[in-house]
Amino acid sequence: MPLSERAVTVQASPIRRLAPFMLQARERGVKIHHLNIGQPDIETPKAYMDAIRGFAEKVLAYGPSDGLPELKKAISGYFGRYDIAITPADVQITLGGSEAIQCAFCIVGDPGDEVIIPEPFYTNYNGFAAMVGLKVVPVTTRAENGFAMPPIEAFEKAITPRTRAILVCSPNNPTGVIFTPEELDELALLAKKHDLFLIGDEVYREFVYEGSRPKSLLELKGVEDRVIVVDSISKRFSACGARVGALISRNQELMACALKFAQARLCPPTIEQLGAIAAYKMSPDYFEPVREEYRRRRDTLYEGLCHHPGVLLKKPMGAFYMIARLPIDDANDFAQWMLTDFQLDGETVMVAPADGFYATPGLGKNEVRLAYVLEVPKLHRCVDILLKGIKAFNKA
Amino acid sequence: MPLSERAVTVQASPIRRLAPFMLQARERGVKIHHLNIGQPDIETPKAYMDAIRGFAEKVLAYGPSDGLPELKKAISGYFGRYDIAITPADVQITLGGSEAIQCAFCIVGDPGDEVIIPEPFYTNYNGFAAMVGLKVVPVTTRAENGFAMPPIEAFEKAITPRTRAILVCSPNNPTGVIFTPEELDELALLAKKHDLFLIGDEVYREFVYEGSRPKSLLELKGVEDRVIVVDSISKRFSACGARVGALISRNQELMACALKFAQARLCPPTIEQLGAIAAYKMSPDYFEPVREEYRRRRDTLYEGLCHHPGVLLKKPMGAFYMIARLPIDDANDFAQWMLTDFQLDGETVMVAPADGFYATPGLGKNEVRLAYVLEVPKLHRCVDILLKGIKAFNKA
Repeated sequence: MPLSERAVTVQASPIRRLAPFMLQARERGVKIHHLNIGQPDIETPKAYMDAIRGFAEKVLAYGPSDGLPELKKAISGYFGRYDIAITPADVQITLGGSEAIQCAFCIVGDPGDEVIIPEPFYTNYNGFAAMVGLKVVPVTTRAENGFAMPPIEAFEKAITPRTRAILVCSPNNPTGVIFTPEELDELALLAKKHDLFLIGDEVYREFVYEGSRPKSLLELKGVEDRVIVVDSISKRFSACGARVGALISRNQELMACALKFAQARLCPPTIEQLGAIAAYKMSPDYFEPVREEYRRRRDTLYEGLCHHPGVLLKKPMGAFYMIARLPIDDANDFAQWMLTDFQLDGETVMVAPADGFYATPGLGKNEVRLAYVLEVPKLHRCVDILLKGIKAFNKA
Repeated sequence: MPLSERAVTVQASPIRRLAPFMLQARERGVKIHHLNIGQPDIETPKAYMDAIRGFAEKVLAYGPSDGLPELKKAISGYFGRYDIAITPADVQITLGGSEAIQCAFCIVGDPGDEVIIPEPFYTNYNGFAAMVGLKVVPVTTRAENGFAMPPIEAFEKAITPRTRAILVCSPNNPTGVIFTPEELDELALLAKKHDLFLIGDEVYREFVYEGSRPKSLLELKGVEDRVIVVDSISKRFSACGARVGALISRNQELMACALKFAQARLCPPTIEQLGAIAAYKMSPDYFEPVREEYRRRRDTLYEGLCHHPGVLLKKPMGAFYMIARLPIDDANDFAQWMLTDFQLDGETVMVAPADGFYATPGLGKNEVRLAYVLEVPKLHRCVDILLKGIKAFNKA
């Protein structure tokens, strides 16, 4: 009674391996600063909470499989404010951005087909690909270039007869990079040339600290029917526990297929969608102070680390992550050691070793992903702990 | 840029085809009684609603991927009250029973592998199988036998080298049948003999109107590590819109794999789990009046239809569905005609043609699935409308 190959081989969360060491440190009374996970500490909007608490129906019934019409409308209205014209028919509400990715994978390919993704990438793409039998083919971006998109030839070289789609996450988790309009235009041409879909994970689109608003794949010309965008309220409205996201495409044949898969799982959570409607109806002004707060946090962590000898870190432009190359041999050993052997006045820092974000074995060995989801004074403290930790680790 | 084969070929909801006719009838002012969907009208428990409205955190954060520990404990406690010993470690909270089925499929087989399911079956199994690349192999149950489980030889005949699991839903959607302890024991022997998993969809386990409590797969001896049970609060607590379910197995290697897939999609909805905890902590007395209400409804619909000439309908034992063979040629035509051409004093009934619940083409042509989720006086009215509708349809 063997378990399936995909179940056995699918990558476990690369962060999870460290959890027992984290718990032991906590038991020893060590205070742990979490730079390892992207759980924002920003308060969920009051409008969201009020909508949830105000739920007055007697029966918590199934909603429509594609989501509440008012939420689909609110999301198309949100994009409309950025002059991105989509209609409610182009939107399907999903169980977080997670389900949107999984559904997109299901629709673009059959088992054995391939999807190209710039690495390092959000590790959970691996899980969704394994579930639906797709193969992830990485195209490497490098710390030396600030994880900028590789030349388009690198993508073209990765294309095989089984390639069905290219997925880009911008602003990027885990690198914080934002792909330029020109880079995305080149991807659009490539997608047309090789008859591919383009999947955009754009859940961090509001979290941008440099330059103008990032270009959405929905703004690319000539590939309107090839583009699938993954969206989510988790980070945008600090509502990670809601599990409300969206799959967006103007390809109505594709949306009809998405609906068939959506019908199988019945509907997204009803009450949480009411919260999401309220959040999407807020003024865009809501994002300003949030963005400012994250910008300060980014600057704190970046400035604190980038001048340190041996640290390779270009200024990230968006999302709330960065990948730093550290003057250490092995980031897994270092991350574990910071929990098991190090403390500064009873405090330590938990980081995510970056190798788990690469599909190519051997890459990211001396890199860590840092999430700046803590307040500025705490981040100053984290920098201090990290730098002293690196020094001590190299002497140990 | 073709869509995937699975996306194109996956069955759409067999009920959905009728939706436009339903909307047109509604626009004409016809009142439609819905016997076509399993949306209970029973009120969601006050304890559930209170827990949701009482959510007082400032940040709606990610919860654990396997669900809130208190909910896992509450569910193992619930089974413990029926002398079914499971521990919280045997429970993973899922996004409705839907995700539990999908996850089970992912774990028991790889693309191309097969799962045997008695037909007619819950149509959404098709969607999950398509998503993860499994093939559903039906074993036919028949209206003439009240949809009783076929002889074990029928299952054995359906086994191939690619068979990985047998799925049984008991109490059954769509037939209302409950498989006997002896039948399940035979299945257990077969699973051992052919090294298969047994998946039990037991979301209707509280909805039983005849005989003793249905046996759970979790009570089978000698196959503890082969059994996966799918559970859900949707029907049990009339909380369909919550999207909270559970995957239950004592096979810890299997649960570790389930956790890896769960980590990919981060967590189940946080607030809804608080509602579920409150619901599971209610006294088992809660179910008595609910069960009585459904029993009266079943009796109303069954007694109203079973004596009519040409109707083939054995008394269903559980869940809140029945499949009736009607004296008509084509249930799809009939269901549509009831919406487009028939009314009794401005009212009509919407039924689900049963052919969509069969995997074998041609079966169920003159059968309909009826869900008794309406109050008794309304069901009396439905019987009247249905019988007069059948008569008029056959003259039309």
